[in-house]
Amino acid sequence: MTKLCRYGLLGSEKPGLIDSSGTIRDLSGFWDDVTPEHLSPHSLAQLAKIDTATLPLVEGSPRFGVPVSHVSKCVCIGLNYADHAEEAGLPIPQEPIVFLKAPSALCGAYDDKPIPPHAAQMDWEVELGIIIGSTARYVTEADALNYVAGYCIINDVSERSFQMQSSQWDKGKGCDNFGPVGPYLVTADELAEPQQLHLWLDVNGTRRQDGSTATMIFSVRQIIAYLSRYMTLLPGDIIATGTPPGVGMGHKPPLWLQEGDEIRLGIEGLGEQKQTLIRWRQ
Amino acid sequence: MTKLCRYGLLGSEKPGLIDSSGTIRDLSGFWDDVTPEHLSPHSLAQLAKIDTATLPLVEGSPRFGVPVSHVSKCVCIGLNYADHAEEAGLPIPQEPIVFLKAPSALCGAYDDKPIPPHAAQMDWEVELGIIIGSTARYVTEADALNYVAGYCIINDVSERSFQMQSSQWDKGKGCDNFGPVGPYLVTADELAEPQQLHLWLDVNGTRRQDGSTATMIFSVRQIIAYLSRYMTLLPGDIIATGTPPGVGMGHKPPLWLQEGDEIRLGIEGLGEQKQTLIRWRQ
Repeated sequence: MTKLCRYGLLGSEKPGLIDSSGTIRDLSGFWDDVTPEHLSPHSLAQLAKIDTATLPLVEGSPRFGVPVSHVSKCVCIGLNYADHAEEAGLPIPQEPIVFLKAPSALCGAYDDKPIPPHAAQMDWEVELGIIIGSTARYVTEADALNYVAGYCIINDVSERSFQMQSSQWDKGKGCDNFGPVGPYLVTADELAEPQQLHLWLDVNGTRRQDGSTATMIFSVRQIIAYLSRYMTLLPGDIIATGTPPGVGMGHKPPLWLQEGDEIRLGIEGLGEQKQTLIRWRQ
Repeated sequence: MTKLCRYGLLGSEKPGLIDSSGTIRDLSGFWDDVTPEHLSPHSLAQLAKIDTATLPLVEGSPRFGVPVSHVSKCVCIGLNYADHAEEAGLPIPQEPIVFLKAPSALCGAYDDKPIPPHAAQMDWEVELGIIIGSTARYVTEADALNYVAGYCIINDVSERSFQMQSSQWDKGKGCDNFGPVGPYLVTADELAEPQQLHLWLDVNGTRRQDGSTATMIFSVRQIIAYLSRYMTLLPGDIIATGTPPGVGMGHKPPLWLQEGDEIRLGIEGLGEQKQTLIRWRQ
């Protein structure tokens, strides 16, 4: 149906829609923001009735923000590609490994990534993101996709020394700007099949990840059904579904991101992201 | 200075203040809600100027909700009491163990606790909660308490089979109503010293936890300074600072909560909570 975005400076983003030529159209006259409430099936059906050509064109090249406001939680699945589990030296999980990314870590798809001053092992993870549209609680796999508003790219940036310092990973996943989301949310009807998507990531022009959602251990349907038995999934919640092989940690010796490095990543049908690693400033 | 609460039915809570006689006074004429923004030092200073006696008395015994709206994250510290680490059979951590509780798990201090249908090992954890008032990023221990709006009780309810199923604990900590907060937020100036508080928890009238924040491994100051180096702490964020010994998991054989069980818990100066375990209903 459509690609939704939030464009503009951090904290003052406006709702937008990407038209068929790839240009942003302003949705401010229709919605106040891309809020969780606007992701309901009813609301998206109302949106679909708009003639996109009547919406104002947005001039220039504004920043893309997180494509939905007020994300209440970002749930991540660990080791969800068999080859990635292998490169991490960890057994293939029998059930999804669930952890959370702090919402304060989420940022726009092209935002610079400040390196925390005590970081030493900065790594990348291209992931298919699911954005929930309807409250999901104990849903079946067969019904699971009905709760999805759309999909997006998410880079599950990780600092491995923070992540592995204790048993719990969240600390190494939740630093500021460790979760670029977008550039836009592609509504679910526009994506025929979430399990047949090519996804890739380049560092300084060298391809490092090159996979397909076809090789996920737990599918999008399974993940939603599973999570909904442990926590209510709310509209606007984001699920990061795990990363294919090729992360820096998997190299021998490991490859860690440095100041000035440029990450580009993309998923078929969901656009591209680009981030530059910069020195952290208070 | 004061005790802040949100009273009323789930989703339509109003802002309130507990007066010196323990009665709720309505703050609706002053604030729209107890929002993160209202927890700033400036806002709390404005509030302190109000003559409480002029605020309308609230009739009856309304429900207490989470005492701050729009909590963006709930950060938890694991094994932060030496005796509790010992009862869990885990080494005393050298650095704080950090994990996150899904904000969808937070609930009122007296809300019933539905038992997830596949739960088998429901457990309790009385904890001192810190509620952040000002954005904290790379703050020092000496300065840390200046970022605190207030304190509250939090019961870090845990389902141990969910928690221990993989390496990551979040799944066993994030089920709906696994985070009763409150009944109210006690502003920081009302609590002379957060490291000298008695905290306790009873199950069906039997004392199970009986400790003091004096035996924390990492103090409130240390926790705030530490976390602020990994993720920006935002106004309204809640930090659960770990639990003293006496959880169900620590008993031999373990004690798990059952339908009909009643948990009461309290912290010196911060009031009491009570929850009843009930059968889960869709």
